[in-house]
Amino acid sequence: MKELEFVDYLTRKFKVKRPVVMGIGDDCAVLEHTRGKYMLLTSDMLIEGVHFERNTAPFAIGWKAMAVNISDIAAMGGVPEYALVSVGVPKKKNIKFLKKITDGIEALCRKFDISVIGGDTNRAGKTVLSIALMGEVEKKRLITRSGARPGDLLFVTGKLGCGRVKHLSFLPRLREARILGNFKISSMIDLSDGLALDLNRLARASSVGARVHKELIPIFGARGSFKEMISRGEDFELLFTVSPGEAKKIMKHIRRKKDLAVTRIGEITRVLGVRIVEESGRSKLLKSRGFRHL
Amino acid sequence: MKELEFVDYLTRKFKVKRPVVMGIGDDCAVLEHTRGKYMLLTSDMLIEGVHFERNTAPFAIGWKAMAVNISDIAAMGGVPEYALVSVGVPKKKNIKFLKKITDGIEALCRKFDISVIGGDTNRAGKTVLSIALMGEVEKKRLITRSGARPGDLLFVTGKLGCGRVKHLSFLPRLREARILGNFKISSMIDLSDGLALDLNRLARASSVGARVHKELIPIFGARGSFKEMISRGEDFELLFTVSPGEAKKIMKHIRRKKDLAVTRIGEITRVLGVRIVEESGRSKLLKSRGFRHL
Repeated sequence: MKELEFVDYLTRKFKVKRPVVMGIGDDCAVLEHTRGKYMLLTSDMLIEGVHFERNTAPFAIGWKAMAVNISDIAAMGGVPEYALVSVGVPKKKNIKFLKKITDGIEALCRKFDISVIGGDTNRAGKTVLSIALMGEVEKKRLITRSGARPGDLLFVTGKLGCGRVKHLSFLPRLREARILGNFKISSMIDLSDGLALDLNRLARASSVGARVHKELIPIFGARGSFKEMISRGEDFELLFTVSPGEAKKIMKHIRRKKDLAVTRIGEITRVLGVRIVEESGRSKLLKSRGFRHL
Repeated sequence: MKELEFVDYLTRKFKVKRPVVMGIGDDCAVLEHTRGKYMLLTSDMLIEGVHFERNTAPFAIGWKAMAVNISDIAAMGGVPEYALVSVGVPKKKNIKFLKKITDGIEALCRKFDISVIGGDTNRAGKTVLSIALMGEVEKKRLITRSGARPGDLLFVTGKLGCGRVKHLSFLPRLREARILGNFKISSMIDLSDGLALDLNRLARASSVGARVHKELIPIFGARGSFKEMISRGEDFELLFTVSPGEAKKIMKHIRRKKDLAVTRIGEITRVLGVRIVEESGRSKLLKSRGFRHL
């Protein structure tokens, strides 16, 4: 079963009765919180042999587990606040190993002012780390996957293809997301599973299509095939859409402040489906190919 | 490293700056929420080969993962509301397996009106399930581990020793906890790791000692040694303390309503340490022996 399908299954299964603004299906769940703010909730699990290797540095495991969750909060325009950390470690690993995982978690908590408020430690055959992160976002600043409109322009932060070398040490785009939150961002998602898959998710959630111009995609380094580049996950850059007018404001801001790197890579269309356009003008369908977890 | 020690390490490491009412060290973390209510947050991870076996029914895995979290919320007097579910399943397991885990989760969600609002599915070598649960409690009804006072009486709900046969299908004592919340419960903890260990936790958190009368402990069935009975975990009954006056009110309520089964098993002392008292009057120290996860 594909993850998308399972999430659909969960969504149908768990019809939400309470005042949930948004349940399963975006980067975070959104709940009513205070008068001016929503609460954001997300959780991600990292498993040895799947998300990291047996010999991965424990600091990097802790860092990454926290970073992927922060990235989910960033993608909705919010600010992370509280974390619950559940960890399973093999009996043969020593206390140093567990402390170094904790150090990795703490490094990001310190950087982004997050409080770890609960923990659960277990024996396990292989190392597994699951973090639940809670944050908040001003109601006006909430950005979802579902707000993209035909005619909107499509942007990414940073460069794609870094996941290969940096997926264990990436810095989640929280600062960038907060700056973008000053503008009218119509939709946003973090690139956890590759441009192909995540853009299809965004387009599907918004009931629109998209065209991506191959030559506009900012690629990190030169190695690897293009296909691999856009279907490989773990870039954790932000993919977002804005109206052309708002895009002008963002570019003007960037020229003045130089506090952000974004690249326009395409546009949102009324016609469904995501197409990749070659320089020659020829285009083909970009399927939901990417890192799938199931 | 013992779990207690690691939690201590985390507590020192993550000095909380935000308005956290209670961080690591009780059954749940407690946050300010609305004017009259606190928010409760807890998370627990279940791992194949540690908390359940390779051939455990997937429904039971889902049920238990939800039940242990609900039990944590119950132990603080609260009501569960929202859950985030992270799951890792081996590639060879089929979709039915994953759906049955979900069915087990849903059965308890339905019973206790909990909404699953987020999910994360992954491949894994062995099955692992981590649930984060959010709930709330009226400020007046918050019950912690740290409120026991010398002279208080010590009670348990239900009978001990059921964990052996029922640990995969136990019903968390949420209903019982909400009834107890109508009285002045001075402290409470759920028996996840056995009476010996969890009573020591409660006594330590309250800076008091306790005496337990061996012949008063309500035992389920007759199998197993006494020592095993009180050091085996997963009973998930509630252990709580009340003043003698309040105890009378509770017993009077129970005689009238018959909606609760509680047994007095001892009392709280000024002298530190937990002692078990034989019928002969001889007593000995009850060490923090129980199921430790690390």
